[in-house]
Amino acid sequence: MAQQNQISKAVIARLPRYYRYLRVLIEQGVERVSSEELSRLMKATASQIRQDLNNFGGFGQQGYGYNVKSLYAEIGKILGVEQVHDLIVIGAGNLGRALVRYKGFSSHGFNFRAMFDLDESLCGKSINGVKIRHINELESFVSKQKVDIAALTIPSEDAIQVSKTLYGLGIRYFWNFAHTDLELPEDAIVKDVHLLDSLLELSFAVSRSKENKR
Amino acid sequence: MAQQNQISKAVIARLPRYYRYLRVLIEQGVERVSSEELSRLMKATASQIRQDLNNFGGFGQQGYGYNVKSLYAEIGKILGVEQVHDLIVIGAGNLGRALVRYKGFSSHGFNFRAMFDLDESLCGKSINGVKIRHINELESFVSKQKVDIAALTIPSEDAIQVSKTLYGLGIRYFWNFAHTDLELPEDAIVKDVHLLDSLLELSFAVSRSKENKR
Repeated sequence: MAQQNQISKAVIARLPRYYRYLRVLIEQGVERVSSEELSRLMKATASQIRQDLNNFGGFGQQGYGYNVKSLYAEIGKILGVEQVHDLIVIGAGNLGRALVRYKGFSSHGFNFRAMFDLDESLCGKSINGVKIRHINELESFVSKQKVDIAALTIPSEDAIQVSKTLYGLGIRYFWNFAHTDLELPEDAIVKDVHLLDSLLELSFAVSRSKENKR
Repeated sequence: MAQQNQISKAVIARLPRYYRYLRVLIEQGVERVSSEELSRLMKATASQIRQDLNNFGGFGQQGYGYNVKSLYAEIGKILGVEQVHDLIVIGAGNLGRALVRYKGFSSHGFNFRAMFDLDESLCGKSINGVKIRHINELESFVSKQKVDIAALTIPSEDAIQVSKTLYGLGIRYFWNFAHTDLELPEDAIVKDVHLLDSLLELSFAVSRSKENKR
């Protein structure tokens, strides 16, 4: 899979969406699809779709299109869903609990191993089979167990601090829900989910439309 | 505010991040900041920062930089945080509940008015003061009350269906957590938060790094 090193971030960011649409086609019993059909469904140009998918070797065949199941399987493999990924969640509040309870993650190979929190009254409890541990146990847990990804659902200052600790313990992949950017070396890969930012974009649109109506 | 109509989506998407960094500067007691200082903090180029902020009139002054408080207030005004935005949440599951419980939204003018769910055993309960109503009441509620934004935390097929109903009732702003793209007319503004997609991007990176180590 040497060619993956040259794939742009933009293409990678679009892969989960291809994966999602192909899943729907499989559920509808569709066996093959042309780039034109995919283009109508996904509201992208057919040439972008062909270009994107060419990055992963020529899955399409002239005059036949793409075999839906094998394209789905191939993209799944590229996205790593065939492997098990072990996660920990820092913060056992509402959002952290919602994450470990969501069924869609485990069916794609994501395995929540533990949650960590400062609040001693939560420690020892389990959410959907995932044990809440005290944050003091973080270091010993991470050094003994396989942890691929850390999800951060804690306040900003804590997130910056804890992510540095986790980086020091060898963790390089962060799913960050804290309302801040993390301050980590360049080889850390951070995927931010800034909920307030996305809500503010909507609020901007609402406000602008009200201005225009005046 | 006529100039706002020409502002690109990319600039709008960056505004919440400026807003976030300026808040931190205020909390640190910083009164003014140059585009160079902001650039170091935000890891963006100073010229992009100047260009972005120029979109909203020349808040900066040569040799002085930006007044942090007034820039913060101005961007807040543009983002609409001075106004109250009324939200409803479709789906009273874990994620929906986490949203109405999160304190950071109400402090920015976001007001959760009601949650709706199919599950009758949930109806009548309140989460953080927000009442859960049966989905059957959606139409009468929306036609009588002011609702700006609908957050969707329900399965994909339901989200597509309910968003069409809501559009028919006049709602144009959607905060979509369902694992699907919505199928709405062009004047609907949808902000997607596809959690599985973002986790798959991380999983891609984890898998690729493992490939490389072999």
